[in-house]
Amino acid sequence: MTQGRIDLALVHHPVLNKRGNVVTTAVTNMDIHDIARTARTYDVRRFYIVTPLPAQRLFVQRILDHWREGYGKQYNPSRHDAFRLITVTETLDETINDIVGTDGIAPLLVATSAVFHTKASPYSLVKRMVHEKGKNVLLIFGTGWGLAETVFLRADIILEPIRGNATYNHLPVRSAVAITLDRLAGIG
Amino acid sequence: MTQGRIDLALVHHPVLNKRGNVVTTAVTNMDIHDIARTARTYDVRRFYIVTPLPAQRLFVQRILDHWREGYGKQYNPSRHDAFRLITVTETLDETINDIVGTDGIAPLLVATSAVFHTKASPYSLVKRMVHEKGKNVLLIFGTGWGLAETVFLRADIILEPIRGNATYNHLPVRSAVAITLDRLAGIG
Repeated sequence: MTQGRIDLALVHHPVLNKRGNVVTTAVTNMDIHDIARTARTYDVRRFYIVTPLPAQRLFVQRILDHWREGYGKQYNPSRHDAFRLITVTETLDETINDIVGTDGIAPLLVATSAVFHTKASPYSLVKRMVHEKGKNVLLIFGTGWGLAETVFLRADIILEPIRGNATYNHLPVRSAVAITLDRLAGIG
Repeated sequence: MTQGRIDLALVHHPVLNKRGNVVTTAVTNMDIHDIARTARTYDVRRFYIVTPLPAQRLFVQRILDHWREGYGKQYNPSRHDAFRLITVTETLDETINDIVGTDGIAPLLVATSAVFHTKASPYSLVKRMVHEKGKNVLLIFGTGWGLAETVFLRADIILEPIRGNATYNHLPVRSAVAITLDRLAGIG
């Protein structure tokens, strides 16, 4: 049995705002850079940046062109190497279709959350799926105040929230991605 | 035996640049925000931002005043809560002295690195020191291309580097802090 692959989606819609309304957040440069480097470190296959806004997709594409083709490629080869993982998509459906186009089957949809869902599963379950059962998974992270309920409803697995020692629960999504990948794919 | 406490230092001097020279890096707003929130999540006691440059210490102090005392405190209480952990110091010595002033004894100095040192110890050793032996530790992270050799020479423990599945080794320091704290102090 070969190991399954991990793909990652950073979703900018549908996500919640501070008041719990469904909104579209802006793509941030910081998320692109940090998450690409972390994804590359943990051997993630593709890092999908999901946004329905054409102007935002153009913005990401310009950054990618700079680091993948332009001056940035010579200046910083390790960044180039990380940015090769990025694909910009319009929706979660387009993201899943892209993976189906490669693998022939849909990945297990694994939604992440900072709050505890009654259906939440432990990290060990996803780890077993990937490492022992050879399943390909799509790890889905929400920006803003987290993924909208519609994403949790279609997810195959909802991951339990990351807990530290304290009751404070406001990790940046960049840090949450790093910790989640280390728990699922880290050595040591 | 009570558990030991973890303090964290983000060092801007002495660190290396791309060519391996000892330099002073600039403090970035992104590091302050992300690491403060992660430190708060994992119940870190103090987050020391170490820089010998007076203008840089003033810059950090202004950001802290905004979020700790000014308008930011009302606007974003969770950020206020994270920023309470931050202390700005000039040197690693001043940082250690501040801890000695609180605890009466020096913390175990735990230096982190993205490359493998011959003296490197596993995470389990530091975890045991904190959780079983009740030792207070100061986790030291370098900015730029990592801590200068002088810091490793005075460290009590050098932590093994974080490894993912790949050979790529360019995690942002913000992500390295998140993963390290999760390995040492996370639940789940």
